[in-house]
Formats: sequence, structure tokens, C-alpha cells
Amino acid sequence: MTASPRINLDRLINRLDQFNRIGALPGGGVCRLALSDEDRAGRELLVQWMREIGLAVTIDAIGNIIGVRRGRDDDAPMMFGSHVDTVGTGGRYDGLYGVLAGLEACQALDDADITTRRPLALVAFTNEEGSRFAPYAMGSLVYVGGLALDDAYAIRGIDGATVGEELRRIGYAGEAKPGWLKPHAYLELHIEQGPILEDEGLVIAAVEAITGLAWTEVTITGRSGHAGTTPMHLRHDAALAAAEVALFVRRLAQEMGGHQKGTVGRVELYPNLVNVIAERATVMVDLRNTDGANLRAAEQRLAAFLDGLAAQQKVTIATQSRARFEPVIFPSEMVALVEATARELALPCRRLPSGAGHDAQMMARICPASMIFVPSVGGLSHNVNEMTLPEHLGAGGNVLLHAVMKLAA
Amino acid sequence: MTASPRINLDRLINRLDQFNRIGALPGGGVCRLALSDEDRAGRELLVQWMREIGLAVTIDAIGNIIGVRRGRDDDAPMMFGSHVDTVGTGGRYDGLYGVLAGLEACQALDDADITTRRPLALVAFTNEEGSRFAPYAMGSLVYVGGLALDDAYAIRGIDGATVGEELRRIGYAGEAKPGWLKPHAYLELHIEQGPILEDEGLVIAAVEAITGLAWTEVTITGRSGHAGTTPMHLRHDAALAAAEVALFVRRLAQEMGGHQKGTVGRVELYPNLVNVIAERATVMVDLRNTDGANLRAAEQRLAAFLDGLAAQQKVTIATQSRARFEPVIFPSEMVALVEATARELALPCRRLPSGAGHDAQMMARICPASMIFVPSVGGLSHNVNEMTLPEHLGAGGNVLLHAVMKLAA
Repeated sequence: MTASPRINLDRLINRLDQFNRIGALPGGGVCRLALSDEDRAGRELLVQWMREIGLAVTIDAIGNIIGVRRGRDDDAPMMFGSHVDTVGTGGRYDGLYGVLAGLEACQALDDADITTRRPLALVAFTNEEGSRFAPYAMGSLVYVGGLALDDAYAIRGIDGATVGEELRRIGYAGEAKPGWLKPHAYLELHIEQGPILEDEGLVIAAVEAITGLAWTEVTITGRSGHAGTTPMHLRHDAALAAAEVALFVRRLAQEMGGHQKGTVGRVELYPNLVNVIAERATVMVDLRNTDGANLRAAEQRLAAFLDGLAAQQKVTIATQSRARFEPVIFPSEMVALVEATARELALPCRRLPSGAGHDAQMMARICPASMIFVPSVGGLSHNVNEMTLPEHLGAGGNVLLHAVMKLAA
Repeated sequence: MTASPRINLDRLINRLDQFNRIGALPGGGVCRLALSDEDRAGRELLVQWMREIGLAVTIDAIGNIIGVRRGRDDDAPMMFGSHVDTVGTGGRYDGLYGVLAGLEACQALDDADITTRRPLALVAFTNEEGSRFAPYAMGSLVYVGGLALDDAYAIRGIDGATVGEELRRIGYAGEAKPGWLKPHAYLELHIEQGPILEDEGLVIAAVEAITGLAWTEVTITGRSGHAGTTPMHLRHDAALAAAEVALFVRRLAQEMGGHQKGTVGRVELYPNLVNVIAERATVMVDLRNTDGANLRAAEQRLAAFLDGLAAQQKVTIATQSRARFEPVIFPSEMVALVEATARELALPCRRLPSGAGHDAQMMARICPASMIFVPSVGGLSHNVNEMTLPEHLGAGGNVLLHAVMKLAA
């Protein structure tokens, strides 16, 4: 290699700023829920930018956007990217940073007049967040054959619309078959979304694993009744049972310790009125562990708790798995390559498992994969105040650029 | 009095059936939330029926519907009635029974060719339930001067619309000034909505008091964050704090015992997504007690609990009173008159306080008032399976008819 290219940080930051006007929330942060009008507007800008730097853009049937930069050979491409959708109170970097830094890496190669041996494939996967439609990482999951296209189309979101309807509505149900392009390897640059790099004064993490995850929808059916006349001891109160579930999930995570996480972030009561004892409650439980056996143990303890709760609160409880992924261990050569690249660029680095799910965990099913993390200020993410310092955005972009160059050589 | 009139039970039941087709829910029960399209349809049917039996109908500015039957004198009228709105999962009798039995009482007097000395005034008050717009008993509260008309108009409901907008939209912002007709006395026939009459094998309760009530909106603000990456001990989880409130309210009612009730039936989380720690929760707390001092004690214990909870869960908590009514004791002459009337009709009767709020508690501010209860099967109310046996519907109607005749004499 005759040059040591660097990304253009100003250009990257300008693109982040421009893109984040789409779905901007009044108090800061963004909302670009998957397949919404805002998601569509973001997709259109991305496709335009990809075309401006000469990438050949293909949309597949689940809406994944892939822009290919030609290589010297016609071998399997080196793929990298992330997603551009966000949660309802999303930040400016989750997902988008990995896609726009990938775009910038391509343009930095143009500027340095470098053509890699392998083609490069920049990807933005559909619905990584899963906030509107479960499961998360839907686009990459369909891409690797882990979810049939028709099953994905039929999934109904929190607002009642289906994935298929919304993909067609926004014009992103493409022609290509998901998985049409088989990558040589996959790399994903992302913000850490946690506090560890910042705490340790580091700049880069080479991601060695992704936490396993189980989303369980718990439906509690009690009996509605008048809040003023129904004696306390005769109640079948679904809201009360829902509250017990939320507190149990916290207790479970605290008791198991280590990498166990447990969250109840979504609850719906019915009829949800001040003077009516709730007849029904739907509670989403999010359990995560980097260890597969511990994750299963947590799920079993939840199931046992729900059995006891149904009897104690005189309600019926049904559960349905809404997403479940085993922990993923990335190949050590990939993790070592990220680490070595950071070291070459004199960037302090450590290995880290990811507590969040990512498209890379799906891509690991069909090719060697890993991820590059940069610090999140205060560890904040899925929060409108999500922030990564410009120097860290630049550092991550350069690690991506050089790791991609190695993997495409 | 030369005749002993009786209500026509078939006619009453036919009208109940016909009316309950409006807002009928697929699985049984009805939904006629105040000032909804269904509420409008119900009002139109009621006004039509009032006019068919010759009542002079007036709509006041808060939408209360009053139909007057002429008396021999032009003295202050004897008023009776209830409401026709329902909760979201309402039953067939709550409110509607009192209005249609009142209509039937008027028609039974027609059939018996009886004109009372005082005029009779049959009333259907606006928004008794308070499910869509707090506070409950809004129409009667405005009628007695307890809430200014403009303040009522400005109240925003759970769907964002205001009372004023919705009254105008459905065409029930009438010309008359609320309170235009000052009653001699007020009687309200209603289902018990609790299990006591059924348990004791009785048919009629003479209602001696109405429980006091305090609705507190508790707004909890935490910090949103990623469910997979935010360490458990660094969370500021509004959903978890909301769950603690629900469990405390149950514990409070159990510890205080007696007539203390406590319910959390309405909770809203934001952003309410499976993988995002909740940033905000709004919890409605419904506390009731027939004793004013005990109700105040319950409110104080709630406030103290919320103070501790904010510190413990590292969230901020704000409260706002959404409705507050002291317990109401009905005049003993009125209660005794109901009791005596039931006894004359050979109907087993007891005195009972009401755990639910009613328009009668507001009317008691401007005239002697009381209520007549009939049994609820299984004590169920605010429930689609709400049921009262036909013979009990008839019994209550006849007690109303004869008590009205006495009070209008």
C-alpha cells in the first residue's frame, strides 16, 4: 500500500448533521422509526449520497440498501455498514455513524485514488432497532436466511401496520433477493452505547462477542371492575400483576449479577382508565446475558415467577417469545485484526463484549464478522443526549477504513 | 292518591336493550365515553324518547339534558336521573338504568293519569364517569357551581381533545345556564356496583353516604437509556418507579383496611419501547375512603412514599390532583324516605354507603339528595359483564316512582 489514507472528519460530521435533520426531535435527538416517513427520507438521502460517490446501489426485498464500490477483482466483497433507523427517542450516532463513516471511508479511498482488490459493499440494514417491529436486526436476519421474507412481511408493528405494507408504502420493497451478495467478511463500526471505554480512557473497542437476548411478551388477564366498589381482596388486577413483573425483572438482574440485564420498558394496560381495575396488561420483558446458559437460567426463573404470580394475583398469564438470540462469539482473527489496526493508528484499545444486539451478530452466521466501538459520553444511548466526541468519531472511521483495506486486500 | 302505579318492566327492558346497541362492544358491554360519537347517538335517542312522552327538553351549556314533566303547581321540581356515558369497558346498567327508569316512571304516571303537584325533572348529566375527561361527575359539578363553565370547557381529555371542543362537535353545548332549574330534591337510582346487597339477599339499599375520593396524577421522570448496555445500578428507570407506586397503593389500602380503597388503573410510559429504559411514567392513583380524615391520611402516606421513592430510584416525581371530593353524608330524612318506600313495597332493604362517586354527591350541595341501589350480580361493574336481574330492575324502578311521588306531593 503506497498511501496511508485518512477519513475526512469534517465531511463525515457535516453528513451526520445534515442527515440528523431528518426526524429531529424538538428537544434534541431524532426519531426515525423503521419504515416511517422519516426512515424513508433518510434512506433517500443515503441512496443519493451513495450514488454521488459512484456506488452501485441495490435495494433488496426487505429494504436493505447496499452500495458496491468496484474492486480490482470480482471476488466476494468486503462488507461494512450498520443501520439508519432509530428508537423513538434516539440519538444522533446509533447506527447512522457506522453507515456514514463507511460512506466516508469509500470517499477517502477515492481521494487517495485507491482501488481495493475485493469490491467493497456498504450496507444499511432495515429495522435494526426493533422498536416498531420485533425482532430487532430484522434486515440482517432476513439477509442471512434466519427469517423468511414472507414471515417478516407479516409482522405487525406497535401501530398495527405490517412490515410488508410499510415497505411498499415507503417504496423500499426492492427487487433483489436478500442475501444476493455473499460477503468475504463483515465489519460494523458503532458507538459503544455504554460507559466502559469512557471510564477507562480508551478510544476503540474490538468487539469479541454480542450478548444473547430474550424478549418475552407477557399478557396478563384479570377482571375489570369498579375502583370504588370492588373490595381489595376480591380483585383480579392485571396492572398490579404487571407491576410485580417489572419489579421481579429488576430483582432477577440484581441477584444474577455479572452481565445479566433485565428491563421492562413497554407496558400497555386495558382499558387504562383511572377508575377501572385493569382487565389486561401486556408487559415486554427484555433479558440479556453474554452467557447462553445464564440467559436460559434467567428465562426459567422468569417463567417460574410468572406461574406463582398468576396464582397469587388470581390472574391468568400467557407468554410469547418476541425475539431470542443466543450470544455470538466473533472469530478471534477478526477481533485481533481490529485490535491490531487500532494499535497501528496509535489508538488505545481493548476487547469488549457488546451488551446491545447489532446486525453484525446476524452477519456472523454467513461470514467472519466483528465490530469496532468508539466511546459514548456518559454511556448514554437510546437517549436524545447520545454523544460521541468528534475525535472519537474520526478515530473509529480511520480504524474502519484501514481494517476494511486489510480485509479487502 | 287514588292509584298505586307500577312501572312497566318490559318497556324499561326494551328501552335498555335498544339504547345499549349504541356503543355495543363485540364481546358484550358498551363503550360510550363522554362526548364521543356514541355518547351523541345515545343523547339523541334519549331526547327523542323524552319528547315522545311529552317532556319539555332543555340542554344546558355543559350538555346536561333535562326533561320536565309539568306539575299541578309551578313550584321547584322534584329532580331525578343519572347519566348515559360509560367507561371504556362499560356495562349495560351503570348510569343508563337510572335515566331510563326515570323515563319509565314518568310514563307510568301518564298511564295512571297522575299529575304530581310539583313538576318532575328527569336529568342525564354529562360525563359522570370521568374516564375520558377528569374530574368525574363533571356535568353535575358544573350544574351546582362547583366548577366554572370555562374551566370545564378547557379540560383536555386522554385523547387530547377538550370538553368545549367535543361538546360543540357533538352539538350538545346548549343555551341554558347550568343550574337554571333549582330542584326541590334529587334522587338517583343506580346499580350498587358492589357485592353487598347480593351477599345479603337484599333488593334495595337506601344510600346514606358517598365515599370521598382523591385522584392524583403522578409523573415520574427518569432517564432513557439502552436496555442492553446501561448497567443496572446506573439506571433511572421511570417504569420501575411506576411499578413501585402501584404496589404501594395496594399495600396502603390493605394496611388501612376498612373502607379504604386504592387503585392504579392507568399508566403511560414514554417512549414505551421494549429496548429503551423508560424516561417518563404517568401513573393515576385513585384513593377512596368514606371517612374524610382517613382519606387525608391515605393521601399523606402516598406523598411520603413518593418522596422516598424519588430518592431511592433516582428519579424526579411531580404530582397533580386530578379530582378530589370529600365524603358526602345524605340527609337522614331523604334516606329514611327511600327506606320507608322500599318497605311499603315489601322489598328487603338496608342502608349503605356508596364506594363509587355519583352525580347525587354534587346535587347534595344544592338540595336534599339520596340514592337508591339495586344489586349487581357478582358485584361486577365497570365491566362488560355488569348485570342486574330483571326483577331487581323492576323493584328499583318502583321505589324510584313512589319516592318521587312522595317528594313531589
